[in-house]
Amino acid sequence: MKQRIGQYLIDALHVNGVDKIFGVPGDFTLAFLDDIIRHDSVEWVGNTNELNAAYAADGYARVNGLAAVSTTFGVGELSAVNGIAGSYAERVPVVKISGGPSSVAQKEGRYVHHSLGEGIFDSYSKMYAHITATTTILTVDNAVEEIDRVIHTALKEKRPVHIHLPIDVALTEIEIPHAPKVYTHESQNVDAYIQTVEKKLMSAKQPVIIAGHEINSFKLHEQLEQFVNKTNIPVAQLSLGKSAFNEENVHYLGIYDGKIAEESVREYVDNADVILNIGAKLTDSATAGFSYKFDTENIIYINQNDFKAGDVVSNNVSLIDLVNGLNSINYKNETEFPVYKRSDMQYDLNDSPLTQRNYFKMMNAFLEKDDILLAEQGTSFFGAYDLSLYKGNQFIGQPLWGSIGYTFPSLLGSQLADVNRRNILLIGDGSLQLTVQALSTMIRKDIKPIIFVINNDGYTVERLIHGMEEPYNDIQMWNYKQLPEVFGGKETVKVHDAKTSNELKTVMDNVQADKDHMHFIEVHMAVEDAPKKLIDIAKAFSDANK
Amino acid sequence: MKQRIGQYLIDALHVNGVDKIFGVPGDFTLAFLDDIIRHDSVEWVGNTNELNAAYAADGYARVNGLAAVSTTFGVGELSAVNGIAGSYAERVPVVKISGGPSSVAQKEGRYVHHSLGEGIFDSYSKMYAHITATTTILTVDNAVEEIDRVIHTALKEKRPVHIHLPIDVALTEIEIPHAPKVYTHESQNVDAYIQTVEKKLMSAKQPVIIAGHEINSFKLHEQLEQFVNKTNIPVAQLSLGKSAFNEENVHYLGIYDGKIAEESVREYVDNADVILNIGAKLTDSATAGFSYKFDTENIIYINQNDFKAGDVVSNNVSLIDLVNGLNSINYKNETEFPVYKRSDMQYDLNDSPLTQRNYFKMMNAFLEKDDILLAEQGTSFFGAYDLSLYKGNQFIGQPLWGSIGYTFPSLLGSQLADVNRRNILLIGDGSLQLTVQALSTMIRKDIKPIIFVINNDGYTVERLIHGMEEPYNDIQMWNYKQLPEVFGGKETVKVHDAKTSNELKTVMDNVQADKDHMHFIEVHMAVEDAPKKLIDIAKAFSDANK
Repeated sequence: MKQRIGQYLIDALHVNGVDKIFGVPGDFTLAFLDDIIRHDSVEWVGNTNELNAAYAADGYARVNGLAAVSTTFGVGELSAVNGIAGSYAERVPVVKISGGPSSVAQKEGRYVHHSLGEGIFDSYSKMYAHITATTTILTVDNAVEEIDRVIHTALKEKRPVHIHLPIDVALTEIEIPHAPKVYTHESQNVDAYIQTVEKKLMSAKQPVIIAGHEINSFKLHEQLEQFVNKTNIPVAQLSLGKSAFNEENVHYLGIYDGKIAEESVREYVDNADVILNIGAKLTDSATAGFSYKFDTENIIYINQNDFKAGDVVSNNVSLIDLVNGLNSINYKNETEFPVYKRSDMQYDLNDSPLTQRNYFKMMNAFLEKDDILLAEQGTSFFGAYDLSLYKGNQFIGQPLWGSIGYTFPSLLGSQLADVNRRNILLIGDGSLQLTVQALSTMIRKDIKPIIFVINNDGYTVERLIHGMEEPYNDIQMWNYKQLPEVFGGKETVKVHDAKTSNELKTVMDNVQADKDHMHFIEVHMAVEDAPKKLIDIAKAFSDANK
Repeated sequence: MKQRIGQYLIDALHVNGVDKIFGVPGDFTLAFLDDIIRHDSVEWVGNTNELNAAYAADGYARVNGLAAVSTTFGVGELSAVNGIAGSYAERVPVVKISGGPSSVAQKEGRYVHHSLGEGIFDSYSKMYAHITATTTILTVDNAVEEIDRVIHTALKEKRPVHIHLPIDVALTEIEIPHAPKVYTHESQNVDAYIQTVEKKLMSAKQPVIIAGHEINSFKLHEQLEQFVNKTNIPVAQLSLGKSAFNEENVHYLGIYDGKIAEESVREYVDNADVILNIGAKLTDSATAGFSYKFDTENIIYINQNDFKAGDVVSNNVSLIDLVNGLNSINYKNETEFPVYKRSDMQYDLNDSPLTQRNYFKMMNAFLEKDDILLAEQGTSFFGAYDLSLYKGNQFIGQPLWGSIGYTFPSLLGSQLADVNRRNILLIGDGSLQLTVQALSTMIRKDIKPIIFVINNDGYTVERLIHGMEEPYNDIQMWNYKQLPEVFGGKETVKVHDAKTSNELKTVMDNVQADKDHMHFIEVHMAVEDAPKKLIDIAKAFSDANK
């Protein structure tokens, strides 16, 4: 079969699960975009800028399993860098396609626009090498092989990859030797590691599992839960990776976030003698500044690529194989563990100014079984990671990378990945300002997420770390409620306002009853009010910066 | 004298001309920001996002001579990459400061937020190395020397530099050995190169100067004009570097843009036997796709670092020395050259839909002697680079890097660099959408630029290159005139609308009469209407992508 290389790339993405490609047009990609918009099963989603496109692709990939984002060379490519780096840090598979100048322009070192004007064309690929699992520069000769390779690497590692696609290469028609390959996991023997785990467990008096974000990346929820049910080992989650474990399961302990964890959880975890760290990473934000008290010698690290239990170490092992392998272990924990107390959701209804505490209780009550909940890295995330989820919920945050503004375009992507699930975003004013124009794309695509914007006049998360009253943490006050109308959503977006819990309750009831519109809710809270978790973690961050 | 290293850095920037630092706060920079806001002579300008901050710094540097932009590690740092790369390509000196985690966190390889979670801390500096003249990682021991070195490199090369500043280093108080050093240019002997130029000129029958952007970067306008007046050599400008030469000077030929240049200019330049390429770069966008017809053997390249005349070549020579040196040449051109015809500005006033052609004529008539004119890389730039400027005008565009959205935040910077000059921005709807929140910062800083937004429903520049009617070149229709109110400028921004030349004339008269407000003007034009230059260049770009 004859096909243009650009078409093969789109097909290869599609057979691996992509049905939307995000991006911004640019002249080195335009003719390639023709092949996207004419593809039967793949849709082009034009974004307002490239960082927003990269964030949207990340959100889409977290729900869908793989995403692609296309920009032009240089300018658009570099605007997307922060988004792709976040996908790398948090293990989200995104294929970054950068349309480049023609091969002959590159070969001759021409001073073309979007280059640095020095006749060099691989600088941006080299920059991307630091934040992707692999990169490739496509040629007519290597294209088929390389396209398959990099897409499969993205899926194997759950990390972004970078494709430099010169426009003439995209347009070249070649004889396609085979249909694009669907990625399948190839299992390797991990018996030795599993036996090591089993042996450690046999002598365990107080074992615990710490589950983290890689469970979400590799979608190993069922396998993990099966292992837990069989072995009776309780599970603590990190905030980095919330929704890795079913919070309705009786083995769920709660969130472990170091010294600020619920006392019973902290006691149990800090005194555990075998800690199965499954797909988790003990970052500063997840552990209130590395404030865990357990003996790190007791940790068995079970991660993508990395296994470590005492002297038994591998840097070339698959998380999938390890988690599957765990299910062959015969062990039953007999030690009792604290029972997870789901959030009480006993909010107060009154006409006083709304408090953060009340807001998050009300939010927990508002949450439905299959919602996707996105929480921006600020008061929203630190309030939301303590909410009690249902098994069907997916939680999207970005506590390791922590790029403010991320969740707003990410919502565009997560909602487009499944328009039938209710997506709820919790974000604050400071973060919203960075990426606000993503709302325009949401309106354009006619999706119906529910957006709660906390208006508390500035960067509260920064205020709590340092500079409560310093002017650099102030922001310009916007008329947030006008935003949907400005972006063309006067008819399709319902705008709400809540200053008290009574008002918020009415809003929530109205939103619940109206599934036919996007909802944009401005929620007013005091400048210095914050979720307790944020206050505690901010103090830890502040101490680390001295 | 004892001082914190962060304070020394701010002082070093200040003595070299910086009085505003752009950026976005983040927890690895907050305590450093304390020293900025408490500095007597340096002001903090908080931006809505980091790309906008980098663009604003670029605009500020183009007027002021040096700029600085501060962000936090990783997230903010990488969001700024595209802006800094543009400064590199177009030779604009911007000091990029990235506040990093503490030295001990880095040394121990801790999994801190904003890192990639792998214990590596120099990835971002390495990425920046591709798009800066130099980078440094500050320590307590190297700080004084390195701060001076990198700021001086920025000024010497007129290019961005990157500083990685761990937060504990910023806060460390040290004994300062000397006041921060003011950069001064050190001349080197360039007699050999100047003699080569003189010798070539002596046999010249039809010499020409092509002046470009490096004249703007190094502010060599007076020296160039002196040389021109003395030697009677006519000057053509590239669009990349417009305002490099005084367009009121009798030796001015006009814009040379290859095959699409005014016939008399094209004839003269294409047939020149000695071409002094002074601070210019013959890029695709400046030459309608490399469509020059002169013999490149006749070019004498006089650029920063690079001199080339036949076999005489240097890669280590200063543009300042070369241009100063030119003034010692004794040569007088006797060949006649075409006289530059300034734009006629004979616009039509009527009630028909406004045309691009009429719009730019009216704009030329609207321009005053000392205005700074910014033109976004789209219809705005391609229409504006043909306008006739006064000697006092500065023109800001970005035709080599060509990042859409750039000029909007750049306007914030250029206007803040000198609030007493009138700044006029010409931009289109597609570009505005990328960086729209910069308007919020302009309102917050209470500056009073004049902003013309062409609403023609999409990416016209892309349409002309490829895909006139393709959906990827469509954008969401916004209510642009509501933007100032949304961003808090209801009182301080006057909003206008023009659909015809009669309406535009009334608006321009009103704007002219009211210097006390920012003005935001929505100008409506047909989707397919475009300046002739854009139509021609778009065709050249399209051909190059086949």
